[in-house]
Amino acid sequence: MQRLFKVQTSGPGLYEFTGEVVRFVRDSGLREGLLTLFVQHTSCSLLVQENADPDVRQDLDEFFRRLVPSSDDPSMQWLRHTNEGPDDMPAHIKAALTPVSLSIPVTDGRLALGTWQGIFLFEHRAGGQTRRVVGQLTS
Amino acid sequence: MQRLFKVQTSGPGLYEFTGEVVRFVRDSGLREGLLTLFVQHTSCSLLVQENADPDVRQDLDEFFRRLVPSSDDPSMQWLRHTNEGPDDMPAHIKAALTPVSLSIPVTDGRLALGTWQGIFLFEHRAGGQTRRVVGQLTS
Amino acid sequence: MQRLFKVQTSGPGLYEFTGEVVRFVRDSGLREGLLTLFVQHTSCSLLVQENADPDVRQDLDEFFRRLVPSSDDPSMQWLRHTNEGPDDMPAHIKAALTPVSLSIPVTDGRLALGTWQGIFLFEHRAGGQTRRVVGQLTS
Repeated sequence: MQRLFKVQTSGPGLYEFTGEVVRFVRDSGLREGLLTLFVQHTSCSLLVQENADPDVRQDLDEFFRRLVPSSDDPSMQWLRHTNEGPDDMPAHIKAALTPVSLSIPVTDGRLALGTWQGIFLFEHRAGGQTRRVVGQLTS
Repeated sequence: MQRLFKVQTSGPGLYEFTGEVVRFVRDSGLREGLLTLFVQHTSCSLLVQENADPDVRQDLDEFFRRLVPSSDDPSMQWLRHTNEGPDDMPAHIKAALTPVSLSIPVTDGRLALGTWQGIFLFEHRAGGQTRRVVGQLTS
Repeated sequence: MQRLFKVQTSGPGLYEFTGEVVRFVRDSGLREGLLTLFVQHTSCSLLVQENADPDVRQDLDEFFRRLVPSSDDPSMQWLRHTNEGPDDMPAHIKAALTPVSLSIPVTDGRLALGTWQGIFLFEHRAGGQTRRVVGQLTS
């Protein structure tokens, strides 16, 4: 079973879509198996992270912006791929440092997420985007 | 087929549990398919890494501690999420930089690990914890 | 269904092998399911990244070389595991920061890659190597 999730973003940061994924698994009727998510882009990524304190999401986003500054930052003058904007190549780098695919087991008809785990689209581009994530259930 | 692995940790570092996973696959009788591991936490992660020289594990752990210092380090004063201790937010960041899930093929009834590959729980918190990893076999 | 891909490398960088993987999926006849790739080494990794502008690959490689310099660089004097050459321990670290396994859905008999996505072996060692990647299809 497969479903396409669309996640609307509006600049860098973590966008939770746990609810949609939970419903997809529930509606499928699958009792035990594996859910895999795959993002069809190279400038955003996927994360399973804490969904309790929103400060965690802000700190995660800021860490990555400090690790990989915009290409107009003096420390990033060595970048070659700058023609798509100062946020583009850093976005590719952040997408290489974080997952393009994630797999989560299904147990007794439910996603086997831990208590504090949520599923996030991690946007790395400056502008708003509609991001496509393919969800696949296998048994 | 599914199994829950519990890995006891006592501070930051890599804890190998290849043996338990190998036994799970062998006991399942599966000849060809896929083993997926998923860690139900947001402050530790999973790694497949060299299990020959223990210095590799120490160097890996130290690299991540240098890249993401404790939140009481002067370089990390910008962190917001500090109420769960100076090791907590850095643990979330390290968990974002390393896998929450891993998939390894099963070939002729065995995990298709390379010669020097072992499976590790990568603990990022300071204290001792019992960590939960769900293993799922699909064919 | 399983296939072993061999990727010949000649020093650090990204080596695309999307074509071989696409053919494996097509030849399998599978209409819907999941392709998983797993690299049987601990000093190279896998990436799904942009395959349009080759500058993106160069920038990615250079970012990782700047983040994790060779162990004969003054900033890396703390490394212990240096007996296999100055490129070896940095290669293990880069392999921990990037995926050992990737999963991509199969939709209507084709890999569900986005428009600009290619599949790459990311070599982190200095010398030439033949790298083994196991591909597994599950439904």
